[in-house]
Amino acid sequence: MKRARTRFRVRYPEIDRMGVAHHSCYFVWFELGRTELMREAGLPYRELEDLEQILFPVVEASARYLSSACYDEELEVETVLAALDRLRARFEYRILRPGDGTILAEGHTLHVSSGPDGRPRRLPKTLLTLLGVSK
Amino acid sequence: MKRARTRFRVRYPEIDRMGVAHHSCYFVWFELGRTELMREAGLPYRELEDLEQILFPVVEASARYLSSACYDEELEVETVLAALDRLRARFEYRILRPGDGTILAEGHTLHVSSGPDGRPRRLPKTLLTLLGVSK
Amino acid sequence: MKRARTRFRVRYPEIDRMGVAHHSCYFVWFELGRTELMREAGLPYRELEDLEQILFPVVEASARYLSSACYDEELEVETVLAALDRLRARFEYRILRPGDGTILAEGHTLHVSSGPDGRPRRLPKTLLTLLGVSK
Amino acid sequence: MKRARTRFRVRYPEIDRMGVAHHSCYFVWFELGRTELMREAGLPYRELEDLEQILFPVVEASARYLSSACYDEELEVETVLAALDRLRARFEYRILRPGDGTILAEGHTLHVSSGPDGRPRRLPKTLLTLLGVSK
Repeated sequence: MKRARTRFRVRYPEIDRMGVAHHSCYFVWFELGRTELMREAGLPYRELEDLEQILFPVVEASARYLSSACYDEELEVETVLAALDRLRARFEYRILRPGDGTILAEGHTLHVSSGPDGRPRRLPKTLLTLLGVSK
Repeated sequence: MKRARTRFRVRYPEIDRMGVAHHSCYFVWFELGRTELMREAGLPYRELEDLEQILFPVVEASARYLSSACYDEELEVETVLAALDRLRARFEYRILRPGDGTILAEGHTLHVSSGPDGRPRRLPKTLLTLLGVSK
Repeated sequence: MKRARTRFRVRYPEIDRMGVAHHSCYFVWFELGRTELMREAGLPYRELEDLEQILFPVVEASARYLSSACYDEELEVETVLAALDRLRARFEYRILRPGDGTILAEGHTLHVSSGPDGRPRRLPKTLLTLLGVSK
Repeated sequence: MKRARTRFRVRYPEIDRMGVAHHSCYFVWFELGRTELMREAGLPYRELEDLEQILFPVVEASARYLSSACYDEELEVETVLAALDRLRARFEYRILRPGDGTILAEGHTLHVSSGPDGRPRRLPKTLLTLLGVSK
């Protein structure tokens, strides 16, 4: 299965009143990981939208928070394409502190492929091949 | 169980490239509902932090997305305090279009009560009473 | 000149590490005011985009910050349409604490009317009439 | 004068309903540049807050928008420390498309040094030395 590791830094406005990153930011970080996984696979998500006219909206999302993320620390999102067929993809994520390997959060998103009209639409075979699905 | 209904409007920057609200915004809307539920119960969340020195971080969050939210539409978040004991609270949410009752999303958050030092700390009994927990 | 007053509450994730609202949020609040001014004038901004195919991007924005905004406080954005012709509009804003009239920030945005192709496009006369421009 | 160049990618939720980055995001990008300038100077902003107990809130901010920023494009923020004395600093910014040098936006922020109590407080001399102010 495809896997990607992406570094990023926690931004100042991502910090909330508790002095740690707001829980909603993790879903933005998951998306950074998903974007890089697809770029590394050879099909940037932007091209999926622009060239293939495929939208890939999130239909499920979850996160478990294990440890807090602080301002300005460099973190890593590890993304795994856990399941893929012609209509759906499931990505799983871990947010890690690269220095000591601490896991800050785990989560998943489930996506359904759809056309510009919002109706389900099969993913192009080229994408499935790029993402390593054999048939 | 405590329940609250809170109206809000979808903001321009909450809309993403697909022309609908980004999935991470729903967690911000859930929080609007949670905040109003606590205010209506008589203990604004701000006072919990400031007067009681209690933090109530999210340790789990999930959402299922059923229908898209558009720019400028007025929506409602329905919040239910589904479980509460002296250390943990579980809130459940639905995002609704008030006009026709369409459910746009459902979700939950789980919170653990902690002190300023980050360690678990029992919720004050006054809060439990306000939130309707009998003993 | 058109003027609108719009109430809103400071949201938890809008608070940053200093414990006050992040300076970038004020531009989102200015936009809340602008949106309500246009709605009250009879032409919701969404309709301008959707029915008239007019985009109204920001070409200039500024803010001066005088006092901090705290979590959960109810604030008001006062919006004035300070200048308008067939291609440009200038809005001016003040963020106020309604209780005591404290001004938290002042600012402006300048907008240029354009079509879906990004090129300048004259505002419809109906809009100018609605916004009180006599000719 | 100190100067820094920082690369970043436009994130999906930064894109708004017009299909380009929302104007409020530019202030977040300016902050990325300011943060890296201070890190390169040898005093990370986090340390200024945590070790020196100095806050450096924005008291003025402005931007002029010249060209739109698209999803996933890699941009650069060029930051210049334009003025600095013991109480105030002025940073100026340009957002550039590195490939062809197109300037997408220009702007500035003005900061006043203050203590945890919110009152003005002189910047430490070590910081001024690090930032290249001779006396």
